[in-house]
Amino acid sequence: MIRPFSPLDFLARSARVYPDRLAQVDGTHRVTYAEFNDRVHRLASALRARGVQPGDRVAVLAPNSAMALEPHYAVPLAGAVLVMLNTRLAAAELVWILNHCGAKVLLADPQLAPVLESVRAEMPAIEHFVTDYEALLAEGTAPFTDAPPFDENGMLAINYTSGTTGFPKGVVFTHRGAWTNAIGEALEHGLTAESVYLWTLPLFHCNGWCFSWAVTAMGGTHILMRQPDPARAVELIQAEGVTHLCGAPVVVAGLAQHCLQRGIHFDRPLKLVTAGAPPAPAVIRDAEQIGFDIAHVYGLTETYGPHSICAWRPEWNSGDAAERARRRARQGVPYIIAGTDLRVVDEQMTDVPADGETMG
Amino acid sequence: MIRPFSPLDFLARSARVYPDRLAQVDGTHRVTYAEFNDRVHRLASALRARGVQPGDRVAVLAPNSAMALEPHYAVPLAGAVLVMLNTRLAAAELVWILNHCGAKVLLADPQLAPVLESVRAEMPAIEHFVTDYEALLAEGTAPFTDAPPFDENGMLAINYTSGTTGFPKGVVFTHRGAWTNAIGEALEHGLTAESVYLWTLPLFHCNGWCFSWAVTAMGGTHILMRQPDPARAVELIQAEGVTHLCGAPVVVAGLAQHCLQRGIHFDRPLKLVTAGAPPAPAVIRDAEQIGFDIAHVYGLTETYGPHSICAWRPEWNSGDAAERARRRARQGVPYIIAGTDLRVVDEQMTDVPADGETMG
Repeated sequence: MIRPFSPLDFLARSARVYPDRLAQVDGTHRVTYAEFNDRVHRLASALRARGVQPGDRVAVLAPNSAMALEPHYAVPLAGAVLVMLNTRLAAAELVWILNHCGAKVLLADPQLAPVLESVRAEMPAIEHFVTDYEALLAEGTAPFTDAPPFDENGMLAINYTSGTTGFPKGVVFTHRGAWTNAIGEALEHGLTAESVYLWTLPLFHCNGWCFSWAVTAMGGTHILMRQPDPARAVELIQAEGVTHLCGAPVVVAGLAQHCLQRGIHFDRPLKLVTAGAPPAPAVIRDAEQIGFDIAHVYGLTETYGPHSICAWRPEWNSGDAAERARRRARQGVPYIIAGTDLRVVDEQMTDVPADGETMG
Repeated sequence: MIRPFSPLDFLARSARVYPDRLAQVDGTHRVTYAEFNDRVHRLASALRARGVQPGDRVAVLAPNSAMALEPHYAVPLAGAVLVMLNTRLAAAELVWILNHCGAKVLLADPQLAPVLESVRAEMPAIEHFVTDYEALLAEGTAPFTDAPPFDENGMLAINYTSGTTGFPKGVVFTHRGAWTNAIGEALEHGLTAESVYLWTLPLFHCNGWCFSWAVTAMGGTHILMRQPDPARAVELIQAEGVTHLCGAPVVVAGLAQHCLQRGIHFDRPLKLVTAGAPPAPAVIRDAEQIGFDIAHVYGLTETYGPHSICAWRPEWNSGDAAERARRRARQGVPYIIAGTDLRVVDEQMTDVPADGETMG
C-alpha cells in the first residue's frame, strides 16, 4: 500500500517528535507542538459537530494568527476543504468567492467580520458564521478520531486568484501538491527544527506559499504577526531569533528602509524570501547590508506559490545593471521538487533562450 | 496531469541548473554535472543498442566508482531495472541473485569480474557481460531520446537482502519510493548544493541509502572511493572539503581510531551518518572530539535504507549509561517524509512504550 502524501502528516509527526518544542507565538500566546496538535484536533472535532462533512468548504477571513494557521490542519483533518480569504478584498468580492465555493462555515476575525456581517443575507449557504474562535475550539474534543480516509490527489484547499482578468478563479490545492511544495520550501530555504519563521507574508496568500505546512514539517516555530509592520517585525526578529521570513518586494523595501534609517543590523543569519518582480538592485544592496540573505523566488497560485528560484550570489553584484538583470531573468531555475518541465524567462528580454517557455 | 516522482529528475535538473559544477570525483577523473548527464545518456543509449528493453534487469558488480553511480540514472532512463550486487558475496550467491532477477546485462569491474567469469555458464540469461565500462559508454550517443514513459510506482531497482534467514530476498524500489527517501536524506542531513559527499558507504547497499540520488538532487559533489580505507578517507575529506559521509558503526570506529592515533581533527563541519546498532558511547565521544557531527539512523532494505533518526545531542552525554541507552532506543523518530506510522523500539528494553511497534 502506498502511503498518501499529505501535510497532515507534518503536524502529526512534529507533535510526536517535538511535543515540548515551541510551535507558535501569537502575541503573548505561546503554543507547543503538543498544544498545536491538540487545538487542531479540537477544531476538527468542533467543525464536525457543527455538521461539517468531508468535501464541505470552510472559509477563513483572518489576519496572521492562530485562527489563520490552525485551520490549515484542522479543516483537512475533518475532510473539508480550506478556503483562505484575502483580507484586503471588498465585501462584494468576498461574497462572490464565498458563494462560488459554497462555504458552509466562515471563520472571521472579530475585527474583519463586520464587512461581511452586513451582507450575510447574500450568502445563504453559510450555516455557521463564527467570530469567537476560542469558543469554537472549546466545543471540540481531542483527539479527533473521525478523520476520513483521503486521496492524495483530493482537494485540500482552494485559493482564489486576485481576478485581474475577470472574476477570481479558484485554484485547487491537493494533499500531494501541498506536501510536495512544502517539502520544496524546506529544501530550498534550508528550514530545520531550529528555524524560526516570521509571518510577514499573509497566510491567505497561496496558504502562505506553503510555509504554513513547511515550517511545521521541520518542527520549526511560527511567529505570527497580524500586520507586516516594520517596527514590530524588527522587534520579533530580535526577540524570537527569527531565521526566515517571506514577503513581496514592497515588504522587503519597507523593512530595509526602516532598518537603514535606524542603523539596525542583524548579526544572526536571516533568510528573506521574496517573490514576484525582482527587487531593485538598490533594495538588494540595502537588505544585504542590514544582514538579510535574499532568495528571489517565482511562482503562481497554480504552482502552490514559489516554484522556481534565483539564489542571488554576492559576486553577481559586480556586474553592470544589464548583466544583473540578465542573471535575474535567466537564473530562474525550478525547485528541486519541481522536476524539469518548468522554465522561467523574462519576456521583456530580447535574448530569451531558444528553448525558453513561459509559465502558466 | 500529475508529474510522476522519479530520481531521474534530479540529474536532469542539476545538469541544467549546475552544468559546470563538480558532480563526481573518482580518482583523477573529475566530472561536471553536464558531463555526468552526458555519460548517463550515453550509457542508456548503449544499453538500448545492446538490446535492453523496458523492464529488463541490468546488474552491476562494482566498487564505488562511476560504474556504480552512473547506472543509478542510466538504467532507469532506459526503462530497465537496476540490480546492484554486493561485492562481498561469494560466486554462488551472486549466481543465485543474477538468475533470480534474470539479469540480461552484467556490468562488472575488471577487478571483480573474475569471480563470475568462471561460472558464467551457470547464468544463461546474461547476454552481455561487460567489463570495459568506458568502451560501453563509447558505444552510446547523447542525448538518449528514447526513454520510455514510466509509472512512478513501477520498478526502479531491486536490492537483495543479505539472506540471513534463507535465500536472499529481492526488495523492489520504485521511482516514487526512491525519490521520497532521497528527498528525506537531503532534508534530514541538510544536504545542499555546497555539500561534498564521501562514498565510504557502498553504493550497492540499498543504493547507497539513496544518497546516490540525494546528493545529485541537491547538486552536491560525489567523492567516490573504491574501498573504505581510513587513511584515504582522511585525505579526501581534507583535499575535497567533504561535508557528509555515511557508514556502518565499524567504519565509524575505524575512522575514529585512525584519526585519534594521529591527532587528526576536522575543523569544518563534517556530518557522519551511521546506521544499525547504536555506536558505543566511547566511539561517539571519540568521533565528536575529532570533529564529526554524528547522526544515528535506522532502516531496512524494505524502507529504502534509513527511515528513522536519532539525532544525538551533546547534553545527553551527561546521563549515565542506562539513560543514554534509553535515549537511543526511544528517540528513533520517523524521517519527515516517513509519515507517522513508523515507530522504532528496542525490544531488549523492559519499558517499551505501550503503543510501541517494531518494524519489519
